[in-house]
Parts: sequence; structure tokens; C-alpha cells
Amino acid sequence: MLDTSPNGQVTQLIDRFGAALANGDIDAAVDLFQEDCYWRDLVTFTWNIKTVEGRDQVRDMLTAQLGHTRPTNFAIAAGEDASHADGVTESWIEFETGVARGFGHIRLKNGRIWTLLTTMAELKGHEEPLGHARPLGAKHGAGKNRKTWMEERQEEAAELGFSRQPYCLIVGGGQGGIALGARLRQLGVPTIIIERNARAGDSWRKRYKSLCLHDPVWYDHLPYIDFPRNWPVFAPKDKIGDWLEMYAKVMELNYWSSTTAKRASYDETAKEWTVVVERDGREIVLKPKQLVLATGMSGKANMPAFKGMDIFEGEQQHSSQHPGPEAYSGKTVVVIGANNSAHDICAALWEGGADVTMVQRSSTHIVKSDSLMDLGLGALYSEKAVEAGVTTRKADLIFASLPYRIMHEFQTPVYDAIRARDAAFYERLEKAGFMLDFGDDGSGLFMKYLRRGSGYYIDVGASELIADGSIKLRSGVGIRELTKKAVILSDGTELPADLVVYATGYGSMNGWAADLISREVADKVGKCWGLGSATTKDPGPWEGEQRNMWKPTQQEALWFHGGNLHQSRHYSQYLALQIKARKEGIATPVYGLQTVHHLS
Amino acid sequence: MLDTSPNGQVTQLIDRFGAALANGDIDAAVDLFQEDCYWRDLVTFTWNIKTVEGRDQVRDMLTAQLGHTRPTNFAIAAGEDASHADGVTESWIEFETGVARGFGHIRLKNGRIWTLLTTMAELKGHEEPLGHARPLGAKHGAGKNRKTWMEERQEEAAELGFSRQPYCLIVGGGQGGIALGARLRQLGVPTIIIERNARAGDSWRKRYKSLCLHDPVWYDHLPYIDFPRNWPVFAPKDKIGDWLEMYAKVMELNYWSSTTAKRASYDETAKEWTVVVERDGREIVLKPKQLVLATGMSGKANMPAFKGMDIFEGEQQHSSQHPGPEAYSGKTVVVIGANNSAHDICAALWEGGADVTMVQRSSTHIVKSDSLMDLGLGALYSEKAVEAGVTTRKADLIFASLPYRIMHEFQTPVYDAIRARDAAFYERLEKAGFMLDFGDDGSGLFMKYLRRGSGYYIDVGASELIADGSIKLRSGVGIRELTKKAVILSDGTELPADLVVYATGYGSMNGWAADLISREVADKVGKCWGLGSATTKDPGPWEGEQRNMWKPTQQEALWFHGGNLHQSRHYSQYLALQIKARKEGIATPVYGLQTVHHLS
Repeated sequence: MLDTSPNGQVTQLIDRFGAALANGDIDAAVDLFQEDCYWRDLVTFTWNIKTVEGRDQVRDMLTAQLGHTRPTNFAIAAGEDASHADGVTESWIEFETGVARGFGHIRLKNGRIWTLLTTMAELKGHEEPLGHARPLGAKHGAGKNRKTWMEERQEEAAELGFSRQPYCLIVGGGQGGIALGARLRQLGVPTIIIERNARAGDSWRKRYKSLCLHDPVWYDHLPYIDFPRNWPVFAPKDKIGDWLEMYAKVMELNYWSSTTAKRASYDETAKEWTVVVERDGREIVLKPKQLVLATGMSGKANMPAFKGMDIFEGEQQHSSQHPGPEAYSGKTVVVIGANNSAHDICAALWEGGADVTMVQRSSTHIVKSDSLMDLGLGALYSEKAVEAGVTTRKADLIFASLPYRIMHEFQTPVYDAIRARDAAFYERLEKAGFMLDFGDDGSGLFMKYLRRGSGYYIDVGASELIADGSIKLRSGVGIRELTKKAVILSDGTELPADLVVYATGYGSMNGWAADLISREVADKVGKCWGLGSATTKDPGPWEGEQRNMWKPTQQEALWFHGGNLHQSRHYSQYLALQIKARKEGIATPVYGLQTVHHLS
Repeated sequence: MLDTSPNGQVTQLIDRFGAALANGDIDAAVDLFQEDCYWRDLVTFTWNIKTVEGRDQVRDMLTAQLGHTRPTNFAIAAGEDASHADGVTESWIEFETGVARGFGHIRLKNGRIWTLLTTMAELKGHEEPLGHARPLGAKHGAGKNRKTWMEERQEEAAELGFSRQPYCLIVGGGQGGIALGARLRQLGVPTIIIERNARAGDSWRKRYKSLCLHDPVWYDHLPYIDFPRNWPVFAPKDKIGDWLEMYAKVMELNYWSSTTAKRASYDETAKEWTVVVERDGREIVLKPKQLVLATGMSGKANMPAFKGMDIFEGEQQHSSQHPGPEAYSGKTVVVIGANNSAHDICAALWEGGADVTMVQRSSTHIVKSDSLMDLGLGALYSEKAVEAGVTTRKADLIFASLPYRIMHEFQTPVYDAIRARDAAFYERLEKAGFMLDFGDDGSGLFMKYLRRGSGYYIDVGASELIADGSIKLRSGVGIRELTKKAVILSDGTELPADLVVYATGYGSMNGWAADLISREVADKVGKCWGLGSATTKDPGPWEGEQRNMWKPTQQEALWFHGGNLHQSRHYSQYLALQIKARKEGIATPVYGLQTVHHLS
């Protein structure tokens, strides 16, 4: 009998899907997808972060991967029910492969698969010691000269990197390195994190004084330890710094602070990196098997080269170097740029009593923080979502289940609504001369973030200062040159300045690889970040996933990890599992390794 | 129509109960209790921690308190259902008083109240800023010279205790002081915690090397931030130390380390304490309105006075001073005492290569850790309990709902089962000469803890070392004296010793008040801890609650806070609310202030 309930529909379909896969009947499996379909796989079938689009790509992937993946036991996830709305039936699912347990999500249209998400939850036999499997801590029984927890930690600290090599080295101890390091520690992968600053959290503490997270707390949890219910919605930078510092400590990370990576090279024969680091002034040579650059997708400053920068007699800073307004009360400041940092810095300088001019060279997407929270994030990441049972894990997976190819279609209506809600606000801004955009296709902030990681400001107050002229604005102009005392704009205007702040953004993460390893390797792996959407600053061809992030690159054993706290949390899971599998000698045949289309 | 479902029964009863209270009809309210009844109130009706037993006491309490308590809105708690088993119908309930929201638990027998628990959840108008009410963090909008979070924290640290006085001073920065401090911070009560050690957590770090928590992780959470799912079952002391340190920091406590309280006095007219503290060598005078001693219910060492201690040429230490076995390999050690510390220290010394003799002067209750977890705690505090929906909050409240007067009746069968399960183990121990007990009435470990806070060892391995003679045992003997080189037992045996460890326990917390304030005040408040059960080391008369803990004492504005992590977590809620109410000028008429029957 045909069960037409959502549970019945999903169960029947995944039973057939599972049977087809078990029988190696790829045609039958492909036939369960509709023509317009997307299968996003996070490490289970592809050992990659990969979306295949349309039946041909599904067929190609299965042809390459099915034989060794050995998927079984597809079912609606325990404790979940399928649901149906607006012609789409959807459900959480679970399954296994030969080596792993998977969790996923499926959407059906007209009885066929529209979207499928398959993610790796854990490697069989290498489960994290959580819950029932947590360590005992105390050592029951008795034995001569047993070591205490503290002695074991001290011994590990003394040995790792010296008499014993880490399997993985993470360069960069911000939220990305720390989240990944925590997962690798749980998976028993010996790892060292190196961080140039003196304390974990300093990468936040050292930024401009007024900085707070622009993403809300529900979006920002680290793995394993949630922020408490009294944590502020938008945490101030020093508070996040303190949290990261304590987190690194209680998660028992091997965190080498005051340490910089000087140079690295890969031995293709020994399958091993040689990384020279300087720790508290002392050179140490590390020999990890895997090298992760977690130096920040917004880590490497883009410093422009304007004529006259060498003769300008005032101060010049990249936004990442700007200390805050204290020293600039009564001074005249020109801030070049109009994204998040530029706005935050301008507002803080104005608050601190400086005379501030923002130079906006190209248009910017502005969205009010409240509107973004209510309309953009609220369904997945908010107190309401938590109350509705949307745990952080589920929110992450729902977000991950939306194929990048069509994500803008989900986003555009949200930003249309925001545009309508805040029409008067946008009108005031434009009246002040501010050049606005909502992305090339009107899809707003998230798509800009995923495509180019820039081009927007989440408004927490600076826009009103621009609208009312408190922050002076020059827009639609370039920089001609700097003189001894001023910035000269392309229209000839002279802006006297005691300080020029270059809020000119950050370069692609493979720039880090060029500095640390070689230009050759940087070019071999190519540009990081972006989807190939053929929109501004994200040139095509279409990639389907973010370039080089959290997945194998063209350089064996070299990985890039980063992004906001949400991405650091969620994708560290898949990167950690990829590294763990390699450590354990589990076969990891990669499907669809990206090709390189851009160098930076 | 009579609804005989559990929900119907409870609803009908509490509707009638609520109506009787609303009408001031105390007789009608009392009539809803069965003769054999217990009403435990945590701060809502009594502004005390108080159990009234039997109808007469219920009547007396209501007569004194109903008029100003104004209870309303009794209902089955939102999202909960009543249940029925073994002749008892029970349910979570909620209610309000004039000034607070309450949560509680009720058990009915034959349609009447057998046990009632009423606890204060929050004060109306003074709710904690959690969830929807959490702070924004970032300061949206703009304003000249606004302070950042960091600047505000620094300003508070510079002012509090100097230009601005704390409302509350907590002496002792272990888990008790920290948990209470965190709650008071959330309630907006300006508080300083002083701690003699250099770092939060040092009170754990400085104890003997092998120490791990004897209570499992599910029992040990602090408020607001749970231990993560990878946290060990029995955390090693240094790991707990690190957690407490990070917790004090991220919860933004005003934690003065390296600070000791020198002397304190209360001005009955000004309603204010004068407390002289020494912080990093500098004397500072604090003027708090409320003074909390959180110096440890096991904090003040009992050092015995044996003849010859002054001429003994070896080392002598109280167990709290014992550093661990390193220095004693190959040495001969006598440990006097047979409770937890004595066992842990003996085992570690044996493991470290010392020759160890334990001197057991009176019988000890031994329970194997596994058995205690499985049979004693598992239903409320375990991974299984968590999976069954027994949150930490519910577990705490279920435990709190069992009246102390009859708690042993619930406990005895548990220990009968443990005795049967581990019969062979106990037989081996007794064969080695170890004197066992299960408490005066066979009710086991928890009752011993609540009554006297001593007299037991949770076995994690030392008992087998005693059974097999690895740790030598002398039992049923006293100490006659020490000579230059040995301990002489009451039976004349001479035990040569390089080191004598006095694992002789701790005194009543009012000893701290004698040291800090005066003997007069210490005597006025009397003995702390214990129930008045008329069992060994817990003399009667019956008190109904633990003496002086977390509730008003005979000394105005002086409070005692302490206990294990469970108690520090749970009772800090009620103590914090009592202090907050006083700060806000809310009337707090105390019912049934305890009278003093014992001085220590």
C-alpha cells in the first residue's frame, strides 16, 4: 500500500535509493532525482566538499565513488519526522558508509529528489569520546608511579613538537584554528596551533576599540561549549578574546602563542612538511603531515599603492592596524573605504572627537543590524529559533542544505523585504550621497559574503552619522594622490589629513601560502573563497563550492580553514574528519578536486 | 465532572489549594495536606530554607506568612504532565507570590498533599538578563565618548571596593563563592569575591596530586555554563581548577585573588560590615551590606593534639597540606584517618613508592564509585538521566523535593542493594581488618554527607590496596603519642614514621566566623551543617534543614555558603535571591529562624 504521509513518502524514496546504491544500480539511483537537482556532499561520498548539480553530475559522481563508499541504512533520522509544505517534502536523514556514519537532509518535489545533503558525522571506530564515551578522568584502581592528568598534559607539552611530531600543524590561532584544534584534540590527532600573538584571543583584542561581533550569539557558538544564555547578542571584541583564551585552555589545545611560521616546504616523497617556526625568539623545526592555514579569510591586509604615500607627513594605517580613536581627538582623519571596518572606524573616530571623512569609491550594501537579525537570520539563528527546537547543529545543516547555485533565490526575497522595511533609511543615506547596492542580483549580504567576503556594512549606527553629515562623505571618487598634508581625490578635491586609514580590505588566503611556502604553491592552489558566481569580485566559471576552503587543494596536505564563527564551527567538523581519516590510513579518494581558474 | 487523570487530580487539588490561600482560609489549605506531610520551602513563603512537617507546622507557617506572601496562579508547570505510580501522584508546579515567580513539585497520596516543594525562581522586575533579555553587547547608534565593554569593566575594577562599595562581599573564591558570585553578577548585585590564593581554582590545584572529583560530571555543573560533553566523569583537580579560573573570568566576576580577610565587624545601626582585607600586601577596608563566608564546609582543618607532636622529628601535615607522593618515595608514612582524603593519599603514596600505614580509629562507610554511580546517582545525575530528559535543574529539584526527615528511607534500600552487589568486596575488606559501616541507620553515603560531611570513602581503588595489604592497616586503635621517630598506637604498637599525615577532617564553618569576626558571633550563629539527626557527629534536636547553610543566621547580614558542586550550584540560586531582595528593599520576613543548639 502506498503511504502518502510525508514520512511514508520519504521512507519509500530513500528505501529505493538505498537499494539502488546497494545494488550498484546507478541508473536507478539517478532516476530518483528530478532533472533539476542538487546533491551536496560533505566528505561522505566524495571525500570533498562538493555539490553535484543535475542528473549527469550525480551519475558521474556515483560512477566514480559508489564502489568504495558502500552506503547503507538510509532512514529518516531517529526522532525526526518528515514534513510537507508548498510542494516540497523534506526530512532529516541518516545513513552509513563503509567507514562512517552520516547525517543529512532531503527535499522531494513530485516524489523525486530536489536537494540532498549528505554529511559525515563520525568515522566508525574513531568516534569522539563524548557523553557515554567521555573519559573517566580519575584513574580507578591503582598502579605504581601513575601519572596524573596534569603530569600527562605537561609531558605532552614538553614532547610535542620536540621529541614527538604533531600530525597536524595549524598556522593561526583565531577562532578558526581554535575550533579545528578542539575537534582534532577530541579525535586524538596530535596537533599544534601556532599564533603570533601573546595570548589566544589577541587577534580580536588588538583590533579597533569599538569592534563588536556583527553576527549574533546564536550564530557564533564554538563546538562543544555554547556561549551561556547571558552572553550578549553582539559580543565586544575583548569579551570574545577572553572566551577564546579560556576555550583554548579548557579544551586542552597545544597552543603555541608568540610563535610565527617563518617558512614551510613539502616533501612529496616523505609526505611531510618541514615548517620552521620561531617561538619566543627560538627557531623550532616541525615536521607535520598536514598543514592548515587558518590565518584568516580576512587576514592578509590589502594595502593600496597611491602616489604620494611616501611623502605624506601624517599617519597612515591599514584598518587592521587602527588602534581606536583615543589619539585622534581633534584631528582630521580620512578613511578610504566604505565597508564594515570603515564604518566602525569612522563612527568611533567621530565619537572620539575627530573630524572624519569617509571616501567611498564604489557602492556598498548596507543592511540594518535589526533587520538582518529579524529577516535574515531569525529563522535559523535567534532565541526564537532555539525555542522552536532549531538547535545550532540543525541550523547549520539547514543552511548547508541550500545549494549555492540557487541560494540567491532564497535570499533575494529577504532583501526585498528589508529594502521595503527600511526604505526611509535608505532614502536618507542616498540623499547624503551614499552609493548603495544590494549585490549584483539583489541577493544581499550573505551572498556578498560567500562570493567575495566584502562589499557591505551591517549598520549599527554609523549610517545615521553619514546621513546627518556627522561623518563627512565623499563618494563616487577615487584617490589621485597624497600630498604632504592631504589626500587629493580624483575630482581634484583636497582633503587635509592628520591620519589616513586604508580600510581597503584583505587579499585571498593563498597569499599566506605564497609568504610561507612559495609563490609556486600559492599559484598551484589558486584563489581562495568565492563561488565563481561571475558577480563583482567573484569571477566565473562556476565552482559550486567556496574555493579551497575546508577541503583538499591542489597541494597535497595543505588546507585552508577560516571564515566567520559559524563556518569555523561547522566546517571544522568536516576538515577534522578528513585529517583524522588520513591519519588513520582510511582511504580518502577525492572526487572532483577543484581546478584552478584564478591566482588571487 | 471529576477528572481522575494525574493531570486532573493535581489540577483540582492545586486549584483548591490556590483558592484557599487566596481566601486566607488556612484551615481549608491545611486540610489538603495529609497528616503525614512535608512542605519544603526555598525562600518563597518563608524567606528561609525551611521544611515544615505535619499539619500543625503547615498551619503555623501559613498563619505567620500567608498574609504577606500573596501566592497566586498555582498550576501544573508549562509543558509538564503529572504522573502516577505506586500510589503517589506527582507533578511539577508553578506559582507566583506577590514579589516572585516560583517553581515547585508536589506529591499526592490518596488525593492529599504528601510532599510539597516551593522554590523561588526569580523576583518580579528583577529577572536575570538571559535568553530574550540578554544584553545587546554592541552599542548601536552613536554617541560622543561612549565607553566600550572593556573600559566599563576596567572602570568597575578600579572603583569597586574603593570609591564605590560592594553590596556583598564573599570571602572564599572556590566553587561556592564563584557560583554565588556569578548569580549575583547576573542579578546586578555589586559583589567582590576575595580569595587568598593567587588564581581562581588554586584551592583545588593546591590539594594532593592524585585528587579527582569523587562526584561525577552530571552532578557538578556550575550555573550558566555546563561542562561540555567531553568533560571527564571525575575531573582531575587541576582541570577543575582551570575551569573555575576561566569561569570566573568569562562570568566577569570581581575576583580579588591574593587577598585575605583580616577582621570584620558589623555595625547594627548602620547595617553595614567593616571588613579589613589585605590585597597583595595592601590593607583595604570594605563596607559591604552583606557578608558571605564561602570558605568551605571542609575548609578549616581539624588538627589533632597528640602528645609528642612537638618532639616528633619527621614531617607532620594535615591532609589539606599534603603535596602528593613525590618527596616520599622509599619513606615510611603513617596516615591517621580513614575517610576520602586518607584513602586517596595512602593510595598515591603507595603508588609513589612509599611504605604506608593507615590508622583507622573508627569505622568508615565505603562504597565503590561504580556502584554509587549506578545505584546511588544514576536516576538523577548520569548520561542516562540526561537522555531521559532529567536536566540538571530537574535533578536538583527532585533531590530537593525529598524531605530530609524521610530521606534515609529512600536511601537505605539503595545501600542495601549496594551491599548485596559488592558483598565479596566488603568481605575482603573486613578480612583485612577494615572496620565498615553504612551509617548509624544503614542509609549510606548521602545521609552521612548531609548529617556530618564525613565518615566515608568513595572507592576508586584504595580499598583493594588495603584488602591485599599493599597499604598496611591498623584499625580499632587510637593514637597514644608520638615519639621522635614513631607513632605509638593505643595498643602499644610502634609505627616508625618519616611523615605523619593527619587526615583528621575539618571543623564547623562557624570557626571561620570566630577567626574573622569574633567568638561571640561564632557562638551566636552556632554550628553549621548537619540536620540534627541524632546520629554520630550530628547531635539532635532535629533541625529539618542543614544548620546555617544558605539562609539567614542569628547574625544579621552574615551568611554561610558551601558544599559540593551540586549544592554550590543549586543553593546559590536561593542565597543570591535572598541577597538581591534585601538590596532592592523587598520585605523578607523570615519564618522559623533556626535556634542554636550546638556551638561547633
